[in-house]
Amino acid sequence: MIYRRMAVIGIGQIGASFALAAKAAGAIRRVVGVARSQQTRDMAMQVGAADSCTEDLAAAVAKADLVYLAVPVRAMRQVMTDISPALAPGCLVTDAGSTKAEICCWASEILPPEVHFIGGHPMAGTEKHGPASASGSLFANTTYLLCPMQAPQEVADRFRSLVEAIGARPVTVSPDEHDRVLAYSSHLPHLCAAVLSLTLKRRDIENVTSFAGGGLRDTTRIAAADVEMWRDIMAANGSAIVAATEQFCEALSDFTDAVIAEDWEQVAELLAEAKSYRDSLYG
Amino acid sequence: MIYRRMAVIGIGQIGASFALAAKAAGAIRRVVGVARSQQTRDMAMQVGAADSCTEDLAAAVAKADLVYLAVPVRAMRQVMTDISPALAPGCLVTDAGSTKAEICCWASEILPPEVHFIGGHPMAGTEKHGPASASGSLFANTTYLLCPMQAPQEVADRFRSLVEAIGARPVTVSPDEHDRVLAYSSHLPHLCAAVLSLTLKRRDIENVTSFAGGGLRDTTRIAAADVEMWRDIMAANGSAIVAATEQFCEALSDFTDAVIAEDWEQVAELLAEAKSYRDSLYG
Repeated sequence: MIYRRMAVIGIGQIGASFALAAKAAGAIRRVVGVARSQQTRDMAMQVGAADSCTEDLAAAVAKADLVYLAVPVRAMRQVMTDISPALAPGCLVTDAGSTKAEICCWASEILPPEVHFIGGHPMAGTEKHGPASASGSLFANTTYLLCPMQAPQEVADRFRSLVEAIGARPVTVSPDEHDRVLAYSSHLPHLCAAVLSLTLKRRDIENVTSFAGGGLRDTTRIAAADVEMWRDIMAANGSAIVAATEQFCEALSDFTDAVIAEDWEQVAELLAEAKSYRDSLYG
Repeated sequence: MIYRRMAVIGIGQIGASFALAAKAAGAIRRVVGVARSQQTRDMAMQVGAADSCTEDLAAAVAKADLVYLAVPVRAMRQVMTDISPALAPGCLVTDAGSTKAEICCWASEILPPEVHFIGGHPMAGTEKHGPASASGSLFANTTYLLCPMQAPQEVADRFRSLVEAIGARPVTVSPDEHDRVLAYSSHLPHLCAAVLSLTLKRRDIENVTSFAGGGLRDTTRIAAADVEMWRDIMAANGSAIVAATEQFCEALSDFTDAVIAEDWEQVAELLAEAKSYRDSLYG
C-alpha cells in the first residue's frame, strides 16, 4: 500500500480510472470521490471507483494523504482555494489537468506550505467522459507526465511508485516545456479534429458517413470530447496553441500552393515527408 | 456465381481484398491478378487472392467478364489504353479509384463501345498497402459508391449484386457529386492528417509520443497511407480540395480569433458545435 486514503475531486473518467487502477494494484486502501452531480457520485460507486462519495470538499480531503484533482483546468484554482483550509499537513496534492504552467503556479500561490504538490498529466483518456467510461487499465503502457516542482525527493518518489503501480511510465517535465510541447502533440490535433467536424457541419453533406471510410471517423474522433475541459485547455494555453496553429497553416499552405501550381512532385514529396514522420512515430 | 473470371489490375490491398471477399462469397470462380512487382504477385498468390498472376495486361483481361482496376488514379488512363484492344466484348470494366470525374471521363473516351464501364469507390481500406494487408472482410458494412454511367440496367444490377455479396452497401452517385463530396469527407481529412504530421516533424519534438495520447495517433493515422495514391487524388481533385481547405481555414480562424479575443464562451460554442456534429455522425 502506497497511500491510505485518496480523495478524488472530480471523479470522472480520469479520476475514476486512476482510483480503479490504484485499488486494483493494492496501492491505495480507501477512495473518497467528490462530484457535484448525484448521478456522477452514484456511477462512481457503481463502477467501484470510490468507497464513498460526497459533494463536501473539506470532508473529503480532511483525512486524505493523497488528493487527486481531476476537474477541468479552470476549475482547479477554486478547488485549491476551497480545499486548502481542510488539507492534512504533509498530504500530497496532485492534479490531472491537461495544461501545467497555470495550475502549478496556482498551487504555489494557494496551497498551504505544509502540504506538497506535484503537477500531473496522464497521457490517457478517450473522447468519452464520466465514471461510466472509466477503466482500471486506462493507464497501462501510457506516459504519465509529472512536474514535481518543490516536492521533496521522497514525496516525488512515492508518487512515482504509484504511477508505476498503475502501469504507466512517469516522465518528468517542467510546466512551461509541458505546455509548449502539448500545444503541438495534443492541443493542435484536438483543434484540427474540432475544425474538421465544424467544416463538415457547415458544408452540410447529407448522409456524409456513406461517403467516408475510417479516415473521417479517426481524424474527428477527439472532437467528441468534453467541451468544458477543452475550452479550459484553450484558455490555459491559448497563445501556444495559436502559435502551433500558425505553423500548421504554413504547412497547409505549402501543400495547397503545390496543388495550385500542379507541382505533383512537390505534393508527393510533402506527402512522403508526412508519411515517413508518422511511420517513425507509430510504424 | 455472378462472374466467371475477374482480372484485378493492381492487386494491392483493395484489389486483393475484393478478390478474397468475392471468392469467399462464391461470387467469382477465378481471379487473375496483375502487378508490376514479382513480390506483389507472389504475395497475392500467397494470401489466396489470385488463382494466377501475371504482368501481362492483355493476357489477364482477354477472357475476363469482369476487369477490376485498382491502380493509383493517374495510372488508370494508361491502363485503360493498354487493356482496350484485349477486352472481351460485353465484359464489365470497373475501378476502385478514390476520385471519379476524371476516371469516368477517360473510360468513356478510351474503352471500346462493346464493353461496359461502372465507376466504383469502396469506402474501405486502411493506411496499409499491398496484398499482405488484404482482408476478405474489409468491405463488410461499408458503403460502395457506384457511378453506373451508361451501363445497361442489367449490367449495373449484376455488379450491384456482387457488391452486396461482399457485404457492402451500394450507393449510386454522379461522378461530379462524388468528387465534390469526397473533397470534404475524405480528401480534406487526409490532408489534415498529413499537415499535422508535417507540422510536428518541423517542430522536431524529441520523444513526442511520450507527450501524446490516442488523439495524435488517430488524427495522423491516415498520413501513413500510400504516397503515390494520394498524390494522384490531389492531382485529380485539386480544385475541390483547395476549396475545402479554404472552408477549413475559415473555421480554424473562427476558433483562433475567439482564443485571441479570450472569448471563452465563443470557444465553448464552437467546440460544442463540433462535438454535436461528430456525435450525430458516429455517436
